[in-house]
Amino acid sequence: MKPISKPSYIIGRQPVIEALLAGKQIERIFLQKNLTGEILFEIRKKAQALQIPINVVPPEKLNSLSRANHQGVIAVAGLVNYLDLQEVIDYVVNEGKAPLFIMLDGITDVRNIGAIARSAVCCGAQAIIIPDKGVGAINEEAIKSSAGAIHKLHICRVGSLLKAVDTLHLNGIQIATAEMQSDQKFSSINWQDPYCVIMGAEDKGVQPFLSKAADARFTIPMSPDFDSFNVSVASGIILYEAFRQRTVNF
Amino acid sequence: MKPISKPSYIIGRQPVIEALLAGKQIERIFLQKNLTGEILFEIRKKAQALQIPINVVPPEKLNSLSRANHQGVIAVAGLVNYLDLQEVIDYVVNEGKAPLFIMLDGITDVRNIGAIARSAVCCGAQAIIIPDKGVGAINEEAIKSSAGAIHKLHICRVGSLLKAVDTLHLNGIQIATAEMQSDQKFSSINWQDPYCVIMGAEDKGVQPFLSKAADARFTIPMSPDFDSFNVSVASGIILYEAFRQRTVNF
Repeated sequence: MKPISKPSYIIGRQPVIEALLAGKQIERIFLQKNLTGEILFEIRKKAQALQIPINVVPPEKLNSLSRANHQGVIAVAGLVNYLDLQEVIDYVVNEGKAPLFIMLDGITDVRNIGAIARSAVCCGAQAIIIPDKGVGAINEEAIKSSAGAIHKLHICRVGSLLKAVDTLHLNGIQIATAEMQSDQKFSSINWQDPYCVIMGAEDKGVQPFLSKAADARFTIPMSPDFDSFNVSVASGIILYEAFRQRTVNF
Repeated sequence: MKPISKPSYIIGRQPVIEALLAGKQIERIFLQKNLTGEILFEIRKKAQALQIPINVVPPEKLNSLSRANHQGVIAVAGLVNYLDLQEVIDYVVNEGKAPLFIMLDGITDVRNIGAIARSAVCCGAQAIIIPDKGVGAINEEAIKSSAGAIHKLHICRVGSLLKAVDTLHLNGIQIATAEMQSDQKFSSINWQDPYCVIMGAEDKGVQPFLSKAADARFTIPMSPDFDSFNVSVASGIILYEAFRQRTVNF
């Protein structure tokens, strides 16, 4: 298992803009509110283009992160190497594999994200797609919960899940969403085809506009005594079915 | 979902012995060290007979739990109604069901225990068997993680897992242990038979003396890229296979 990296900060205007221009992985940028200046404007613009979340915060927040002269800006260096979705698709297809991806919609618990990453690798899935907002960060706890599996997966962080669905569709990858109610069983899907599964939050489920854009909406039949698995367990059961179907002579 | 109960304390010698004699569910008893007395002796004896863990602690610990006059003894009232294994077996068999139980050996993470309880109910398992030591307590966090599922299961807390295996065997219930390596796949077991699955800790696995006593030792085949699922995900995959086999026309 690879060692778990600690978060490191890039502090000050010039260091942050240089990191951005050099293409360094950045998790998040904290910007002090009510500050202006050309470099700050550039940082904002570049960060938006790269889909890096910006948090506008009071100066106390920045002071709590570092005692150094931060000039109103601190970037959190990425623990994870986020990749472009199209590049990942090209890579997987070039390797001769049928894509099996998992998209997380509104799953905020980092321990669940870690456990899902672990199941993904165990089941031969190649990528996790997460939105840049509304999902738990791939932080140290997520990496720890994944037992290092996160470093064996392609992680794509996207500005819009719906645009990502378009990209997947354009590449011939079907979308299947996990639903509380559906006539279709998860095991009746042909998982040997290229697929991306979308898992929603336990309370709200997959967002309706994503369900609508999907090619298949399936459910996991279960005992009438109870209504839902933990989301990482449900993901594991689904991904394992895909692994099973993709394994010759299982 | 049932409301989640808060832990409540039974404070003082007479209230604790009365609670024990009345058969109230007690999670654990804190006894002040270096104290003697007839009632304390009785409390110890009764607690041992009921397999309630006793923690011998310095007076500061007791003072931190309650400012009341505790006389050297505080019992934690049970959040969960622990049941006798034989009674649970009789109950399940009388209902005309084939027992499907899960035994947790050294699983300390309460969130995993909660997620496993949830999967158990979803998959039609009837009971969880835990040891009274070395396993995470069924505390508020476990109940919360189980989304209330713990209240829909029979929970058996036993002094010896090996004795529990004997009891299961005497009742015609087979034992299957989850192993990292085995020639037998989990899906090749006939889960329509009465079974108790034993899950071990992620690092150590099932203890050797339990594996040895088992009727079947199985593994979950997976991608060569990685070696293990999170324990609650693995439990979910196994229990789901049992549910699948037990469901007519799945």
